[in-house]
Amino acid sequence: MKRLTTLLLSVVAIAGLSGCQKDAEQAAVAAPQQTFKWKLVTSWPKNFPGLGTAPERFATMVNDMSAGRLQIKVYGAGELVPALQVFDAVSQGTAEMGHSGAYYWKGKAAAAQFFTSVPFGLTAQEMNGWIQYGGGQQLWEEVYAPFNLLPLPGGNTGVQMGGWFNKEINSVSDLEGLKMRIPGLGGEVLARAGGTPVTLPGGEIFTSLQTGAIDATEWVGPYNDLAFGLYKVAKHYYYPGWHEPGSMMEFVINKTAFEKLPKDLQAIVRVATKAINEDMLAEYTTRNQAALTELKEKHGVDVRAFPDDVLSKLQVLSEQVVAEVSAADPLAQKVYNSYKNYRDQVKAYHAVSEQAYINARD
Amino acid sequence: MKRLTTLLLSVVAIAGLSGCQKDAEQAAVAAPQQTFKWKLVTSWPKNFPGLGTAPERFATMVNDMSAGRLQIKVYGAGELVPALQVFDAVSQGTAEMGHSGAYYWKGKAAAAQFFTSVPFGLTAQEMNGWIQYGGGQQLWEEVYAPFNLLPLPGGNTGVQMGGWFNKEINSVSDLEGLKMRIPGLGGEVLARAGGTPVTLPGGEIFTSLQTGAIDATEWVGPYNDLAFGLYKVAKHYYYPGWHEPGSMMEFVINKTAFEKLPKDLQAIVRVATKAINEDMLAEYTTRNQAALTELKEKHGVDVRAFPDDVLSKLQVLSEQVVAEVSAADPLAQKVYNSYKNYRDQVKAYHAVSEQAYINARD
Repeated sequence: MKRLTTLLLSVVAIAGLSGCQKDAEQAAVAAPQQTFKWKLVTSWPKNFPGLGTAPERFATMVNDMSAGRLQIKVYGAGELVPALQVFDAVSQGTAEMGHSGAYYWKGKAAAAQFFTSVPFGLTAQEMNGWIQYGGGQQLWEEVYAPFNLLPLPGGNTGVQMGGWFNKEINSVSDLEGLKMRIPGLGGEVLARAGGTPVTLPGGEIFTSLQTGAIDATEWVGPYNDLAFGLYKVAKHYYYPGWHEPGSMMEFVINKTAFEKLPKDLQAIVRVATKAINEDMLAEYTTRNQAALTELKEKHGVDVRAFPDDVLSKLQVLSEQVVAEVSAADPLAQKVYNSYKNYRDQVKAYHAVSEQAYINARD
Repeated sequence: MKRLTTLLLSVVAIAGLSGCQKDAEQAAVAAPQQTFKWKLVTSWPKNFPGLGTAPERFATMVNDMSAGRLQIKVYGAGELVPALQVFDAVSQGTAEMGHSGAYYWKGKAAAAQFFTSVPFGLTAQEMNGWIQYGGGQQLWEEVYAPFNLLPLPGGNTGVQMGGWFNKEINSVSDLEGLKMRIPGLGGEVLARAGGTPVTLPGGEIFTSLQTGAIDATEWVGPYNDLAFGLYKVAKHYYYPGWHEPGSMMEFVINKTAFEKLPKDLQAIVRVATKAINEDMLAEYTTRNQAALTELKEKHGVDVRAFPDDVLSKLQVLSEQVVAEVSAADPLAQKVYNSYKNYRDQVKAYHAVSEQAYINARD
């Protein structure tokens, strides 16, 4: 209010000397209320449930909070850049911002794999704790700094499902020769268990399972899996998703673009990402439970647990894989040390809180 | 930008007719960039760890995002109004906003008890799902509408601890005659198990336990309990906190004050509450685990689980108490039906996700 009054008075004072019209326009040009237009590229189909609706909500929040001073246009995968070029596009400034998953960028920085989800790693609640109060954010910024990127949490799917199988998994030996669509660290673990991990984009999963080109696939959880119709081409739906126990999405922001924003718009962007990080997990928790009920009751899906000895074997192999990946890169090792230390402590805490409570209640 | 330019041009146009100075002042008064100053009253000591730091962070976020156009001053309990008059003060407009816990207002509206935590009820993640995507928010607004209040989630402590005891709890009979500081629904459950619930403000707990005036107390969790020094005056630290499995704090906003804000400031307030709701749980998760380690390793605290049969009995009694409280009030019954339906479904989902995963990992 004060600033505007001063501005108006100064305009008028000058106008009194040299004519109102011209100086008013000059003052308006110098005003701080500049409008910014940003492009936000994503790795998801436009408005894909959960993953794709989150950046749309983010853009709406920012637009509303800034009264239109920061307008963000969201692009689905392939609209401006391909799904897996989000990191490069934002790093180079083709887009000011992106929404994706850090583990896609392991080729750029091995340490990036710790900032989405790790086999037998942190849950959503634990991940938020590590990132925000356990030193994770600082490490993440260090990993992305060479790319001129500021990373921020962008939502979480919660614990994913183990996947869709056309073969029963009754023992570790049933994993041998299993052709399964499972990317990243989870795929490497499967390979060590004797399986054959396959990387396929989402759009090819259904047909590959139908034709028998693959024996199994993981995707996300009931909400997204129901939308894909995977229950039509697979016999068994296994749990839990040991390979992705709480996948955190990411916002990446081009630092040069961010620094051009006034402080209030910077704060608006930061706070909106926190709100989205909270919102996505709430949405998945609710939609997943409704979808699971529909899968079981309407589609008669056979939902079953991996046997304990299979999970134990996968956990041993996971620890080996993650330790080896970390040992090969000094920054990955630094991140892993922090992550592992947090996980060990939080396990002890959850043994007396979340885990103890849910086991007592259910 | 356009708006300001138009404003300046119109000021100047009028000035051309009748003199710049006077009309500029009138236009400034009508300008949209008004500054608002709000009071935010809380039920916590000023800057109390977690509960009290959250509203301070909220005020900072709002100030930063609004470039000082909405300035919020936070008051600790008793500074402007007593801890348990937050609801009334905001309802009547003494303060524009408050930060507290809904279950304190059961005397105003029985249904309010469902919006903090319920014995054997929802965890933090589940509560966020119910409130935001399961119909909880709409019901909460209905409960608070007669009081001219808009409620919004304001953080979560996660699963609390069962409490500090100077007597071992080895069977249900050990609860008989137990004098324990435990308010609300949890206290009613203890009473039905033969105990004597006592209501005491936080500041009197330590001495009451030390003198033997009470045999036991619950408070929050390791982070807050360590700060209170309760380990010095109690022998055993029990888990889990069956009575408060995920206590959601609340922001309450005077609706008349809220409606006076321009749309962008309204959006800023709403989004900042979501960010705080996410932030507090991350903070508690991290600080609780560090505090638990300190309690065990530095202070040698005996951390132990309630026996299974004690938890089973408390669960049966809890279901009875909650059903009876609901049956006595139509709106409480409506809220309970929604809450219970959500809990039953989410239990089924967590059996294959969070619960299955944590049990496999740990």
